[in-house]
Amino acid sequence: MNEQGGFHIQDLKPGMTASVAKTVTEADVVLFAGLSLDINPLHVDEDYARTTQFKGRIAHGMLSAGFISAVLGTKLPGPGCVYLGQTLKFKAPVRIGDTVVATLTVKEVLLEKKRCVLESICRVGDKVVIEGESTLLCTSSE
Amino acid sequence: MNEQGGFHIQDLKPGMTASVAKTVTEADVVLFAGLSLDINPLHVDEDYARTTQFKGRIAHGMLSAGFISAVLGTKLPGPGCVYLGQTLKFKAPVRIGDTVVATLTVKEVLLEKKRCVLESICRVGDKVVIEGESTLLCTSSE
Amino acid sequence: MNEQGGFHIQDLKPGMTASVAKTVTEADVVLFAGLSLDINPLHVDEDYARTTQFKGRIAHGMLSAGFISAVLGTKLPGPGCVYLGQTLKFKAPVRIGDTVVATLTVKEVLLEKKRCVLESICRVGDKVVIEGESTLLCTSSE
Amino acid sequence: MNEQGGFHIQDLKPGMTASVAKTVTEADVVLFAGLSLDINPLHVDEDYARTTQFKGRIAHGMLSAGFISAVLGTKLPGPGCVYLGQTLKFKAPVRIGDTVVATLTVKEVLLEKKRCVLESICRVGDKVVIEGESTLLCTSSE
Repeated sequence: MNEQGGFHIQDLKPGMTASVAKTVTEADVVLFAGLSLDINPLHVDEDYARTTQFKGRIAHGMLSAGFISAVLGTKLPGPGCVYLGQTLKFKAPVRIGDTVVATLTVKEVLLEKKRCVLESICRVGDKVVIEGESTLLCTSSE
Repeated sequence: MNEQGGFHIQDLKPGMTASVAKTVTEADVVLFAGLSLDINPLHVDEDYARTTQFKGRIAHGMLSAGFISAVLGTKLPGPGCVYLGQTLKFKAPVRIGDTVVATLTVKEVLLEKKRCVLESICRVGDKVVIEGESTLLCTSSE
Repeated sequence: MNEQGGFHIQDLKPGMTASVAKTVTEADVVLFAGLSLDINPLHVDEDYARTTQFKGRIAHGMLSAGFISAVLGTKLPGPGCVYLGQTLKFKAPVRIGDTVVATLTVKEVLLEKKRCVLESICRVGDKVVIEGESTLLCTSSE
Repeated sequence: MNEQGGFHIQDLKPGMTASVAKTVTEADVVLFAGLSLDINPLHVDEDYARTTQFKGRIAHGMLSAGFISAVLGTKLPGPGCVYLGQTLKFKAPVRIGDTVVATLTVKEVLLEKKRCVLESICRVGDKVVIEGESTLLCTSSE
C-alpha cells in the first residue's frame, strides 16, 4: 500500500479484481445532465425517449463510466495512482432503476514504466453494458 | 437533419466540428463524486490534494469526458444517433475554476455501416487535457 | 424574539413545540451520499440492500437528523441560538418515499446558563424512527 | 470481514481506528440546506452571518456528523453493521473551505450483545469541532 491507501505497482498482480455497485436513479440522470451539459432528450425527455428504439429514457454512458473511475480511484489501484487512459464500448443501455456493477481486473503490469492495464466491465445483472480498458500510472515503493 | 434534430449519416462530412464549453466548479466536483461514488481524496480533500503532485484538488476525468458526450448528444451528430464507443487519454489535470472546451471533429464517415468516427479533444485554454475518439451509429434519411 | 427571529431564553417554556416534515426522495439519498461520503451500499445499491434485513435501500440516519437541525435552526428556538449538542437513537429505518416529521419539544430551560434542552423525535406516520435530545445556547433580551 | 466487507464483532478490538476527510464547500452547504430544510440564515446568508459571533457563514453541524457516518458505513465497522446511536458535542464551527477529518476509534466491544462503541471526533487541523460516541450492532461470524 502507498501512503494514500492505494497499491504500489509491485503489489499489483494480473487477476486482482474489485467492484463497486450503484443503482442509477432519476436524480443521477438529472444531475449528470446538468453537470455535463449533455441534455440529449434521450436522457431527459420521457415522451421523446418512448418513441425511440430504447422505449424510454436511458442513463448517460459516461455516468456508468464514472463507476469505473470509482473503482480505480478508491479500490484498485486506489488513491495515489494517476489515470492515463480509458477505452469504452457501450454495449447496451442502462435504464433508471438498474443497478450497475463496475468490475475492474488487472490484466497487465508494466513494472519499469510503472503502468498497469485493467479490464473494465460494467454489468446490469448478467448483461455487459460497458466493456473497456483502463491504464494507470502507479508509484513504486522505492 | 433527422426528426430529432441530429444529423443523418449522409450529411456528415470529415472536418465538420462543434464544441461546448463549461467552467468546472466545486459544485460539479462535489456532485460528480456523489453520482459516480468516486470519492478519491484527490477530488474531495484539499489538504491531502495539496501534498500530491497536483498541488490541489482536481476534477474527475470522467466529468470532462461528459462534455464530449454533450457535444455528441446535442450538436454533432446530435439526438437520434447511438453512442458506440469512446477512447480517452487524460493528458493534463482540470482544476476547479478551469473552463473546459470540448471540440468534436468528424474524421471518418462509414456510409454503409452508418457509422462515424470523430476526434474528441478537451482543452483548457491552449492546453489539451483529454484527447480521444468517439464512434457513433447514425440513421440515414431513407 | 431576538433580532434574528429566534426565541430569547426567557421566552422558552417547557412544552413549547415545533415541527418540520419532509418526504425523503431518491435524490436526497443520492445527494447525501455525495455530501457526506457515506456510500455504504445499503444506501446506494438496491440489489445489495434487498439481500439485507432492510429488504431495500434506506436513507442515511444523519439525513433525518438534519430535519431536527432544521426545526432548531428555523423555528424553535430559531436563528441566533447556538447548537451545542445532540443525542440520537436510530430506532427504525427510513425508506425512500417516507415522509419524516421531526418534532422538537422544550424539556428544560436553564435561565442562568442560557441553555435549553429539547426532546427531538422523528416519526414516519406513528413510528418513531429517531429519538434524542438537543442542547442549545440562546441569547437573553438584556 | 463479513460478506459485505465490514468487520465481524469478533474482529473489532479497542484502539482500532479509521478516518475520512473532506473539504467543505459552498456547494455542500447549499445542498445540505436543501436536503435537510435547515435554512437558518447562519448557513445561507453571508450578510447576516457576518453580523453574528461567527463572522460569516458556517456549515451545518449535521453535515460534519455525516462524515462520522461515512467512516462507520464504509470503513469501521463498515457495511453490514447497524447504526444504533450517536452523541454529538459541537465544539467549534466549521467554515466553508475547511477540511474536516472524522476519526473513529473503537472504545468498547460487547461481544454478547454484538455491540461496539466508538469514539467519534471531527477535527479541522488540530481543532476538535465535534466530539461524540457512536454505537453499532455488528454481526458475528457464526
